[in-house]
Amino acid sequence: MQKKVINIGLMGCGTVGGGVWKVLDTNRDIIRKRVGIEISIKKVLEKDVDKAKAAGVPVKKIISKPEIIFDDPDIDVVVEVIGGTTLAAELIKKALMAGKSVVTANKDLLAQDGQELFQIAEQNKVDLLFEASVGGGIPIIRPLKECLAANRVETVYGIVNGTTNYMLTKMSDEGSSYSDVLAEAKQKGYAEADPTSDVEGYDAARKLAILASIAFNTRVSFKDVFVEGITKVTARDIMYARELNCAVKLLAIGKDIDGKIEVRVHPTFIPQNHPLASVNDVFNGVFIHGDAVGDVMFYGRGAGELPTASAVVGDVIDCARNILKGARGRLSCTCYDHKLIKDIGETRTKYYVRMKVLDRPSVLAAIASVFGNQEVSLASVIQKRNIENIAEIVWVTHDVLENNIQDALKIIGGLSIVEEISNVIRVEG
Amino acid sequence: MQKKVINIGLMGCGTVGGGVWKVLDTNRDIIRKRVGIEISIKKVLEKDVDKAKAAGVPVKKIISKPEIIFDDPDIDVVVEVIGGTTLAAELIKKALMAGKSVVTANKDLLAQDGQELFQIAEQNKVDLLFEASVGGGIPIIRPLKECLAANRVETVYGIVNGTTNYMLTKMSDEGSSYSDVLAEAKQKGYAEADPTSDVEGYDAARKLAILASIAFNTRVSFKDVFVEGITKVTARDIMYARELNCAVKLLAIGKDIDGKIEVRVHPTFIPQNHPLASVNDVFNGVFIHGDAVGDVMFYGRGAGELPTASAVVGDVIDCARNILKGARGRLSCTCYDHKLIKDIGETRTKYYVRMKVLDRPSVLAAIASVFGNQEVSLASVIQKRNIENIAEIVWVTHDVLENNIQDALKIIGGLSIVEEISNVIRVEG
Repeated sequence: MQKKVINIGLMGCGTVGGGVWKVLDTNRDIIRKRVGIEISIKKVLEKDVDKAKAAGVPVKKIISKPEIIFDDPDIDVVVEVIGGTTLAAELIKKALMAGKSVVTANKDLLAQDGQELFQIAEQNKVDLLFEASVGGGIPIIRPLKECLAANRVETVYGIVNGTTNYMLTKMSDEGSSYSDVLAEAKQKGYAEADPTSDVEGYDAARKLAILASIAFNTRVSFKDVFVEGITKVTARDIMYARELNCAVKLLAIGKDIDGKIEVRVHPTFIPQNHPLASVNDVFNGVFIHGDAVGDVMFYGRGAGELPTASAVVGDVIDCARNILKGARGRLSCTCYDHKLIKDIGETRTKYYVRMKVLDRPSVLAAIASVFGNQEVSLASVIQKRNIENIAEIVWVTHDVLENNIQDALKIIGGLSIVEEISNVIRVEG
Repeated sequence: MQKKVINIGLMGCGTVGGGVWKVLDTNRDIIRKRVGIEISIKKVLEKDVDKAKAAGVPVKKIISKPEIIFDDPDIDVVVEVIGGTTLAAELIKKALMAGKSVVTANKDLLAQDGQELFQIAEQNKVDLLFEASVGGGIPIIRPLKECLAANRVETVYGIVNGTTNYMLTKMSDEGSSYSDVLAEAKQKGYAEADPTSDVEGYDAARKLAILASIAFNTRVSFKDVFVEGITKVTARDIMYARELNCAVKLLAIGKDIDGKIEVRVHPTFIPQNHPLASVNDVFNGVFIHGDAVGDVMFYGRGAGELPTASAVVGDVIDCARNILKGARGRLSCTCYDHKLIKDIGETRTKYYVRMKVLDRPSVLAAIASVFGNQEVSLASVIQKRNIENIAEIVWVTHDVLENNIQDALKIIGGLSIVEEISNVIRVEG
């Protein structure tokens, strides 16, 4: 019998869930025509009935027991937008095992338990799609898995956290301090009351784990990613960045260098003429270099009710098309490789080092010679005279080994002529 | 019996065909692992044997009769990269009717005969994929058809011709004249000996026809697109654009306004802070606004051997995945609607108008009053004194109807106080 409708079980009706309801409701007609079949939300799992009602869900569709969805043979696709890693994991597993395709936006869970979930999806011959987990509404997961599948991907650079990008943009445009822009971001609703996951880079690291797993065909988890947040970035660093013709971004960086993987999230100086330098405010951008395609970039809103719902519903449509064609599980996990993930000490990049030193003739030479002894090759130096015999010096290195520069900085930090090493920020491009 | 290899018949071994051979050869292993099966070029149709040999194709694979491909039941996918609209059309039709999936980069053909070809593909239950036809290696067709399928797309803005973008970038950066940069572009191989198709906007119009057909779910052909090339853009216009904080780009614009379609290609002033304003040199960018996702942009190399091959081989991989899953023809043509395409006279936008007038007190008022009488509302005016009693005036209008401004310009052009209307360029954003 020909199917007449693809039924969805929506789990969670918060911001994203509400957006999913709205998009499927508003664009019902064009989606039906594009897919060739009606897509309809049959049940909405949400304990807070008022929240679901506020999103426009009729009361009779709101349920509190997930079993109603698992046990309903007419429900084809489960959308998990509850978030978190405990209940969500349980619900997704049960849905997959009940033979439902699953769409999720849950980056925390995928960056932690992706491997297990994809195995269960594969065993049950259903789809597990997650376009919304990285970059909100920006198409990036599917383009990477499909459109760019002919490429050996060499690097992935992502601005994948809107909160910190908004903060760094503000600091840069207005010269404001970190704490001022954080307060403003909270007030505008761009930062949460507890901003740890954003400002410490954890959110970006989870997204990088997902991106790198796909780009490099090897499992990368959150715990594999080196993370450094933006809490130490000052208006002064941003001023120097501008002098060096750079922008400061919290960059999620993935590299495949001769089959060894680098995955790191940290504040980064990038040249002003790099396409990512103009990705400002809450916007996200993912910049990929493939051996055939060269440089490509994907840009858009990385969060928000409707942009995220756009990606979730796009995945639902994909599930529907696979169901109609008998092709569920068409694109399974592509982590077929087991590549070594480098320790941060083994990575190479350029560094910006800002320090305060005694303003004496031989100081520059003394510090430069420590760098040299530790094989840290220098590209440029800016010296500014400050107050009371103290000068500020900014060094930019060539590509050097992280272990070498850390050794050098330990020695330099111990010199009597050095007042403080104020900040160290990596430089790309 | 389980398939052991997906065999390709490659038709054409010029720049793109050679690139397809190279990408499939270089990345054979990772593609096999990603798809789960070997993808191999079995035959290469190319009259110029030396050209195919130069690309690395073994002589025994080079053929001159397409029937060898059509009649080979082991060939699953045909890649058409011959170009042109006559022979290519015949070959694609025969391939589809022989039950082969087809991948093509042929924008000219699709913008002209797309409807017929997609019908044949659908009747034969095979794929007809064409990611490379717009934006070279940039993923744009599949993201639009799949990832953004939940959206009502409102606008598509594309910088989709690398030659003209290179030329406008050079004119802007160096203040060079149109003819100087055209000569330089030819010398660098960015422009062909006969640059008509690029500089007159025909190439961009073909790509827009394809993009608009997908974005708005209605058939748009090349002949539906209003086209104006960059041949009249002068260094002086670019100078004024800069004064107005704008960049000049050859923009392919598609809009769906209440179910009526606008499709036009012309030089356009766009604000410097628009993401497309930083798409420079030979790079392409496609900027889409959807009702759920908001603004998204796709950026990368719009042409070249390997970038284009990246898209072609990506499509081949998609065909292979569909074959393995028994899901050929998974995503057919989505032009289910029949929307009205507006005449250019019925479109509304802003206009920049540069003219030379007699330098007399009442001239500005006289011209402004003609604009006013024709319902052309003015946003700003710049007057520069030139030599010998002649002044240059630049007007920028608000959003006005094309018919109204054309009427106004006819009257203004006939005024004795007006020496010439030097240029008229549309302004977006």
